Amino acid sequence: MSNEHRRGERLNALTLVGPDTEMGRLLRTFWHPVAVGRKLAAGKAQALRILAEDLTLYRGASGTPYLIGGRCAHRLSVLHTGWIEGEEIRCMYHGWKYDGTGGCSERPAERDAAAPNVRIAGYPVVEYGGLLFAYLGEGAPPAFDLPRKDAFEVPGTIVYARAETWPCNWFQLVENSLDAVHVSFVHQKGRIGTFGSAVSVAVPELEYEETESGIRQIATRGPGNVRVSDWTFPNCNHIIQPGLKLEDPWIHVGHWNVPVDDYTTARFNIWATPPQTAEKDARVREYFEQAGEYSAAEHHDELFYQNKFPLDDVMQLTSAQDYVAQVGQGAITDREREILGRSDAGIALLRRICFRELEAIREGRPTKAWRKLEHAAELPVQVAHAG
Amino acid sequence: MSNEHRRGERLNALTLVGPDTEMGRLLRTFWHPVAVGRKLAAGKAQALRILAEDLTLYRGASGTPYLIGGRCAHRLSVLHTGWIEGEEIRCMYHGWKYDGTGGCSERPAERDAAAPNVRIAGYPVVEYGGLLFAYLGEGAPPAFDLPRKDAFEVPGTIVYARAETWPCNWFQLVENSLDAVHVSFVHQKGRIGTFGSAVSVAVPELEYEETESGIRQIATRGPGNVRVSDWTFPNCNHIIQPGLKLEDPWIHVGHWNVPVDDYTTARFNIWATPPQTAEKDARVREYFEQAGEYSAAEHHDELFYQNKFPLDDVMQLTSAQDYVAQVGQGAITDREREILGRSDAGIALLRRICFRELEAIREGRPTKAWRKLEHAAELPVQVAHAG
Amino acid sequence: MSNEHRRGERLNALTLVGPDTEMGRLLRTFWHPVAVGRKLAAGKAQALRILAEDLTLYRGASGTPYLIGGRCAHRLSVLHTGWIEGEEIRCMYHGWKYDGTGGCSERPAERDAAAPNVRIAGYPVVEYGGLLFAYLGEGAPPAFDLPRKDAFEVPGTIVYARAETWPCNWFQLVENSLDAVHVSFVHQKGRIGTFGSAVSVAVPELEYEETESGIRQIATRGPGNVRVSDWTFPNCNHIIQPGLKLEDPWIHVGHWNVPVDDYTTARFNIWATPPQTAEKDARVREYFEQAGEYSAAEHHDELFYQNKFPLDDVMQLTSAQDYVAQVGQGAITDREREILGRSDAGIALLRRICFRELEAIREGRPTKAWRKLEHAAELPVQVAHAG
Repeated sequence: MSNEHRRGERLNALTLVGPDTEMGRLLRTFWHPVAVGRKLAAGKAQALRILAEDLTLYRGASGTPYLIGGRCAHRLSVLHTGWIEGEEIRCMYHGWKYDGTGGCSERPAERDAAAPNVRIAGYPVVEYGGLLFAYLGEGAPPAFDLPRKDAFEVPGTIVYARAETWPCNWFQLVENSLDAVHVSFVHQKGRIGTFGSAVSVAVPELEYEETESGIRQIATRGPGNVRVSDWTFPNCNHIIQPGLKLEDPWIHVGHWNVPVDDYTTARFNIWATPPQTAEKDARVREYFEQAGEYSAAEHHDELFYQNKFPLDDVMQLTSAQDYVAQVGQGAITDREREILGRSDAGIALLRRICFRELEAIREGRPTKAWRKLEHAAELPVQVAHAG
Repeated sequence: MSNEHRRGERLNALTLVGPDTEMGRLLRTFWHPVAVGRKLAAGKAQALRILAEDLTLYRGASGTPYLIGGRCAHRLSVLHTGWIEGEEIRCMYHGWKYDGTGGCSERPAERDAAAPNVRIAGYPVVEYGGLLFAYLGEGAPPAFDLPRKDAFEVPGTIVYARAETWPCNWFQLVENSLDAVHVSFVHQKGRIGTFGSAVSVAVPELEYEETESGIRQIATRGPGNVRVSDWTFPNCNHIIQPGLKLEDPWIHVGHWNVPVDDYTTARFNIWATPPQTAEKDARVREYFEQAGEYSAAEHHDELFYQNKFPLDDVMQLTSAQDYVAQVGQGAITDREREILGRSDAGIALLRRICFRELEAIREGRPTKAWRKLEHAAELPVQVAHAG
Repeated sequence: MSNEHRRGERLNALTLVGPDTEMGRLLRTFWHPVAVGRKLAAGKAQALRILAEDLTLYRGASGTPYLIGGRCAHRLSVLHTGWIEGEEIRCMYHGWKYDGTGGCSERPAERDAAAPNVRIAGYPVVEYGGLLFAYLGEGAPPAFDLPRKDAFEVPGTIVYARAETWPCNWFQLVENSLDAVHVSFVHQKGRIGTFGSAVSVAVPELEYEETESGIRQIATRGPGNVRVSDWTFPNCNHIIQPGLKLEDPWIHVGHWNVPVDDYTTARFNIWATPPQTAEKDARVREYFEQAGEYSAAEHHDELFYQNKFPLDDVMQLTSAQDYVAQVGQGAITDREREILGRSDAGIALLRRICFRELEAIREGRPTKAWRKLEHAAELPVQVAHAG
């Protein structure tokens, strides 16, 4: 195999996420957000596609969330159209019933003497910060630790979770997290919101280093404008950005880019801001709830062909701007044709780490034991007006 | 070839219907409904896809229906956009004219001295029970006998024909006809109409036997609740079900599941109910005409993602419920992964018969000479309330 | 390789237009219209797909049009979403800037000491008759001569340019240009406008001959009804047809059929009519502007399934009629199955010439040096009522 061919294969392996792929296996050693918790009521079920698997997400009568296989083992009709009975779900075709681990507990027409020996997929679920996280790997899951951020757990904090689905490969979104330069252009496009204003158009000097949890990124745009953030392997960024007004407290945002499949990405985020007065808090909550329903993909043609960006200055605008840049690279961008420079140092480091971890997967060696940082970077809260 | 591979190929062969496939050849030895007669006026043409062939269906000036190839032999433009002239159809591109057997009768710009020796496909058509049936095989068609039901031919009977197009493989619909258990679950889903009420939720004991015309199915849900039906090879079920009110006379329904192609099925049905008073008959006719325009596929998202079923209790509700179960199995369900039980005895018998007939096709031997039953089962008319 | 296989390959080669195909290489030796000039304002950019290439078309601040590659060389995000700065365009992702020849002039975050050695595609553009023409070949383009028509250049002439995009292969549209018979049928379909009335339904006698610029076509429908037109290789027809009323001056129409890709064709046309009174001219201009926005593809279902043709008698009707005939042949019509006759002499000559030119391309020999006719045919202006 030629070097160029090998390079193409390595780059391609970053993007493929099915259960039998190398990246799919690596991703399955982590907890991932899979849904926004408040969107699913107790006693309801929904179809859910994530990591190229079709699944059933439901809440039992108690409100507990469960994630099991998408289809009944019998005739393979989808399960989410069935009935929730207590903590179990019954298929609407012939009434086979499953518990929250995917075990089949009843097959009415078979008149089984004992519980049938039938099982579909079943994955543990944890609700955190308004998101439902699941572990799609085999065996016991790791402690639910790596996804946690102290900022989301401060008592009184206003926490808002949301999701968008974008029609491109997940790795484009991940690379963007480690690409501090984009802020100086992408977030000046269409309109300039509080984020674009605060960060300025100056092109930064960059530093990247691998940490126990992922990669620390430092972008220096001048004295007093140093932007530090800790990115968590394999797909979670943690940044801080201004609120609706530049004088508001800055907002912690956790971004998770989770593959729906090779061509689609669910972009989950948690917004967390400290409480102020009751009146201000009500305003913030109302803003989150209204602005948060935005989906850039529903405005695709406006963004790509009419240069029409949302009027909202924070959530919607930054999302729309990122959408144009990353979806604009194509469904799966052709990394063999790109031209990286020294300003792509973060992307280069990210890929080196991924190649190393994928090699471990391929060779059956243990991957790195990523763990939550004991001391996360102090995220800077500064206002530096554009220019 | 491994046994598992062979089993996969056999199961796959049940689903493929093009002219060169085994099942396509078997299906082409039968008459099939291809359109609802009243939808096509005299002097009009339409494009029609059936059994993975693209065809032109038209009625001549006399009202006689004809089914010929979809494209003009000359430059292959579609024919249905042309002109009907008497009993013939003329292509709109260069005026080539075809008779109802597919023979080309005129090529204006060629100034032919005699009738040109050009022919496209042409298939015989019979109008019965409000449906247009066609024979897409080679050579002379069999007598138009197997599709007939005595119940549709009783003088004075109110007969109503309709069709829906579903986005899944035809064999899923056929298997459902021989799966009496589904009634106890599928027709309790969303809302419970007169059919669900009459049949009850009790899980039946099952008997299946091959007959001269297909398979006789007997589902016993207790004393006084024995549901018998004769299914006709290869794709027609004949059942009886309550009308709008439980005290109304029960309605005979003939269901034909005809492949449009491997991924799409036209589900034709004829509803027939004996006449009562003029007033009641008018009500029944009005009901048929209003409810009958329903197409579950146009409500796909409501049915699959909003648990929203039609308010109509008979035609629309049962159709919607069956749609969720069968389309829910996927475009072509993966029969290698399913887990059949003893309650799938009807499906098992159906497949054994199909495998036998396909083997005859493959080996060039005659297939079974299916014929209309001399004595069809007495379809039971009973009311057994749910529970 | 069998003769039949070879024939199939030759016919197929007529339809494939990517940069690495034979026809793609042949087409790239000509200027082609790629956009309607007035649709793009100074300082604006748009994505443009033509000849199976994805490109960026923009006008600099001066109004000059430029055609360059569709994606930034850096991370391959699309360029048309960026900023126009003077005569250059800047990518919205990381600010790389390109001049109108595709040369990269700035990479802000790379802090290059000199102009970077990075280049994307860049093609010369000429604005003529309201259309933007581009040359997508390598090296210096030929003189902009072959596309010109004297009729478009007469001082005072009212010139109107427009485009439609059709969902079928370009060669079907080209063949139609050399198929005079179609007029007697296609343009009688749905409704009969001034074109259909003027040309009559009589089937013509045909003459075709190769010229210095392409093919001369003569269709004789009787004394006083001789229709002559000069078609220019490889995809431009020049005809003359009646205006809104039969007594109006006839209109010169140039038709270019340019592949967007193998399955889509951009059908550009220029309409040119001599000036009359100021009042009449205003009426003609208004008509062009209103009727010219029509796109048959947006009325596909009406045309194909409802036999509903536009009320406009000239531009829209002829376009709709041609659309049904040519799109009705399928995305890429299967030329191995067609049955040509003597009335297809123009198509036969067209293909012979194409085969000859493609053979030269394949063997690396020079293709024919097509040049603008010194004496174009006198296009006939006559009125011969239908029948």
